[in-house]
Amino acid sequence: MTQLEYARKGEITPEMEYVAKTENIDVEKLRKNIASGKVVIPKNVHNNTLPTGIGKDLHTKINANIGSSTEMEDINVELEKLDILLKYGADAVMDLSTGPKLHEIRKAIRDKTNIPLGTVPIYEAGVETTSQDKIIVDMDDDIIFKTIINQAKEGVDFITVHCGITQDAIKAVDDSERLMGIVSRGGALTAAWIMHNERENPLYAEYDYLLEICKEHDVTLSLGDGLRPGCIHDATDIAQIRELTTLGRLVKRSQKAGVQVMVEGPGHVPITQVKANMQIQKTICSDAPFYVLGPLVTDVAPGYDHITAAIGASIAGASGADFLCYVTPAEHLCIPNKEHVKQGVIASKIAAEVSDIAKQIPSTMKREYDMAVARDNFDWEKQFELAIDGETARKYYESTSTSDEEMCSMCGDFCAIKMVKDHEKANKN
Amino acid sequence: MTQLEYARKGEITPEMEYVAKTENIDVEKLRKNIASGKVVIPKNVHNNTLPTGIGKDLHTKINANIGSSTEMEDINVELEKLDILLKYGADAVMDLSTGPKLHEIRKAIRDKTNIPLGTVPIYEAGVETTSQDKIIVDMDDDIIFKTIINQAKEGVDFITVHCGITQDAIKAVDDSERLMGIVSRGGALTAAWIMHNERENPLYAEYDYLLEICKEHDVTLSLGDGLRPGCIHDATDIAQIRELTTLGRLVKRSQKAGVQVMVEGPGHVPITQVKANMQIQKTICSDAPFYVLGPLVTDVAPGYDHITAAIGASIAGASGADFLCYVTPAEHLCIPNKEHVKQGVIASKIAAEVSDIAKQIPSTMKREYDMAVARDNFDWEKQFELAIDGETARKYYESTSTSDEEMCSMCGDFCAIKMVKDHEKANKN
Repeated sequence: MTQLEYARKGEITPEMEYVAKTENIDVEKLRKNIASGKVVIPKNVHNNTLPTGIGKDLHTKINANIGSSTEMEDINVELEKLDILLKYGADAVMDLSTGPKLHEIRKAIRDKTNIPLGTVPIYEAGVETTSQDKIIVDMDDDIIFKTIINQAKEGVDFITVHCGITQDAIKAVDDSERLMGIVSRGGALTAAWIMHNERENPLYAEYDYLLEICKEHDVTLSLGDGLRPGCIHDATDIAQIRELTTLGRLVKRSQKAGVQVMVEGPGHVPITQVKANMQIQKTICSDAPFYVLGPLVTDVAPGYDHITAAIGASIAGASGADFLCYVTPAEHLCIPNKEHVKQGVIASKIAAEVSDIAKQIPSTMKREYDMAVARDNFDWEKQFELAIDGETARKYYESTSTSDEEMCSMCGDFCAIKMVKDHEKANKN
Repeated sequence: MTQLEYARKGEITPEMEYVAKTENIDVEKLRKNIASGKVVIPKNVHNNTLPTGIGKDLHTKINANIGSSTEMEDINVELEKLDILLKYGADAVMDLSTGPKLHEIRKAIRDKTNIPLGTVPIYEAGVETTSQDKIIVDMDDDIIFKTIINQAKEGVDFITVHCGITQDAIKAVDDSERLMGIVSRGGALTAAWIMHNERENPLYAEYDYLLEICKEHDVTLSLGDGLRPGCIHDATDIAQIRELTTLGRLVKRSQKAGVQVMVEGPGHVPITQVKANMQIQKTICSDAPFYVLGPLVTDVAPGYDHITAAIGASIAGASGADFLCYVTPAEHLCIPNKEHVKQGVIASKIAAEVSDIAKQIPSTMKREYDMAVARDNFDWEKQFELAIDGETARKYYESTSTSDEEMCSMCGDFCAIKMVKDHEKANKN
C-alpha cells in the first residue's frame, strides 16, 4: 500500500510518525494532509529511504540534480557531487544520467545515500533505445514501461514523467508565439516521439498502467511540465497553462488511484508572474505539492543562474511552492562541477529558508532569532554554527584580523553595535 | 541652481537632455518627474559627473560601496575595487572610508571616475574628531557642517545624512522589543552623540542650514534610515516606521527648498513585508526615489548576503525601489575584497534587471528577447555579449568541450532544443 492509501484508511505509518517528529507537527494533521494529497512522502516500498515529507505545513525541501551526460561521464565525479549536496543539506537527489553507464551510477548513488532518489525514466529508455542502434524517437512503448518497472523495483522514490505532453499540447506550442518552443529535455523527447510516430504519448494514453506500477511500489509521480517556458518572453502563455490543466486532471486520477503525486512548475518567469503561477497551480492541481524548477526571473545572467533561481524560488516558496529544484551557476552552459553543485545547493537552501520565514515555520523563526542574538553578542562561533555555510563565513571573518574580538574589519572602530553598547556600558558606570 | 529648481522653472538642462537620451524617454516627461521630486540627478555643480537619473520610469540603478576602515586601509586596493565595480556596471559609488587617509582615497576615487560619488559625511567628521584626541561623541556641530561644506566644494554628488535619528527616534528604539537596536553605523554614531550630549541631532535641528549648503552645490540628500532593522525579527516595527514618517516630513522640506532628495530603506526584512515597505515609503515620502540597502530576507546566510540581498532587492525594485545598494558576500564578516566587490555588483545588476523586467523598461525587454533568440540559435557569442558577466559564462561553457557546437555538455545528445530542431529539419527534407 502507498502512504496515501494508508492515510486514507486512517492509519498512521512509521514514515508519518518520523516526518511528524522531525517537522515537529501533529501526526494526525500530517495524515490528513497526506490523505488529501497536500503532502507526499516519496519512499519506495523496496527501499529504506529516509522519510521526507513534502507539502503543506512542512519545511520547504530542496532537490539537487546530478548525473552524467553523453559528453561527460565519470562515476567518481558524480559520487563526489553527491557528497557535496549531502554536506550542504539537499533533501532529495535526482540522478539525471544519460551516459552509457547510467545503471552503475544510479546504483552507486542509491547505495551511498538514503535521501529520496528521483529519476526521469525516459532518459534511460532513450539510452536503451540508442544502444540498440535505433534513433531515439523509435523508442518502443514497452521500453518506456519496462524501464519504469525496473527503476521501481530498484527502489527509485519519485519519477518525473511528462504525461502532459500530448498531441493537443504540441498543437498549443505550434499555435503559440514562443521564441523557444519546448526546452524541457523529457518534454522535447516526448514531443519529438509524438510527431515522429504520429501517435499519442504512451505515458498519457496508458496513464492507468503507469498508476498501477507506481501504486505497487509506492513510487511518487512528479508530473513534469514539459511546456515550461524557456525564456521570460514565453512565460505563462496558453501552451504552458493548457498543459497545466491536463496535469490537473492527471493529479485527480493519480490521487483517486492512491498514487502519491506532485507537480513540476516553471521555468523562466518574470518576477511579477511568479505568485500567480503558484496560485493557479494550487487551484488547478487540487493543492498537490508544487515542485519548482527555478523560476528564473531573468535570462541574461548565465553563470549566475543559481542567483536568478534563488530569487524566483524564494517568491515561489513564499507563495506556496513546497519543493525547490536547485539550479547551479553552470545552468545553460555546461554540466555542473563540484563547486557549481555546492553553490547551487546553498542558493537553494537560502530560498528555502526565506520561504520558511514566510510560512512562519517555528524552527525557522527560532534559527533566525538565535542568529540575531548571536550577532548582537558578537558570538562568532554561534553565528558560524547557525549559518547555512559556516565554513565560508568563518573563512571570510578570519581573512582579516582585527584588534578587538567585538568587531570585524568591515566597520572597524565605527562598529554600530559596539558604539551603542559602549555608550550603554558607560552609562551604567 | 539645482536640477530640481531648473525643472520647476520649466527649464531643460543639458543633464536632463543627457539622461532622457540615454534612458530613451521624453525629456519633458523627465523634467516633470524631476520637478515633482520623483527623479533625482545627483550631480554636484563643481563636478563633471556623468548625469545619471534615479527614479520613476528610469532603469533601476545600483550603487557599490567601497572605502577603508580603521582596520584595513590601502588606497591601491580601493582603486582596484573601483575598477571592478566600474567594469561590472555600477551606476554610482559611495566612498565609506573611515581610515585616517580618507581624504586621499576620496580624491583618488573622484579623479578616476565620473559616475556619481556619494559619502556619509559624519564618518569623516568622526575621524576628524578622534584625530583631535577627542572621543567620537564629543564631535562639534561645527565639524559636522564644515565637513559637509568641504565635501560639497570637493564635488561629492550625494550624501547620506541620518537626520531621522532624533531624541524621539531613540525613545522609540528604547520602547521597542528589538533584538538588535540600531545597526546603521551613521545612525548608531548619531544616537550615541544625542545620548552623550543630551541634545537634539544637529542634522535635524539645523536641517534648514543643511538644505542651504546642499542647494548651493546641488548636492543630493540621501536621507539615511538610521533605524533600519538589523535582523528579520526587528523588521517593520514602530521605531522603523516612526523614523520613516520623520523622513517623509524632511523630504517635503527638502523639495520645497529646491534640494534634490532620496530616501534610504531597510535593511533586514522578511520577504512577505518587502512590498509593503516599498509602498509605504512611496506614500509617506511623496514618491521620492527609494534607495534600498538589501533588503536581506534571511539572517542565516553570512558569506552569501549578496544573494539574500538580490532576492530582497528584486522584489523591492519590482515594487518601485529605484536605486539598489549592493551587498557583498563579505557583509557582516569583513571588509569586502575585490572578488567580493565583483560578486556584489553582479548580484545587484541581476536584481536591477529583474526589477526592470517588472517595470517593463523597453531596452530591458529587448535584451531579454535577444538573449532568448540567441539561446535558441545556439549563438554562443551573442549570449556572452548579452550576459551580465559574459566572461564567466564563456569560461564555464568552454570548460568542457563538446563534439557539436549545437549543444553543451549539460545535456549532450539529450539537448531539448536540438531534438525539436532536428525533427523539424527532418520534416522539411
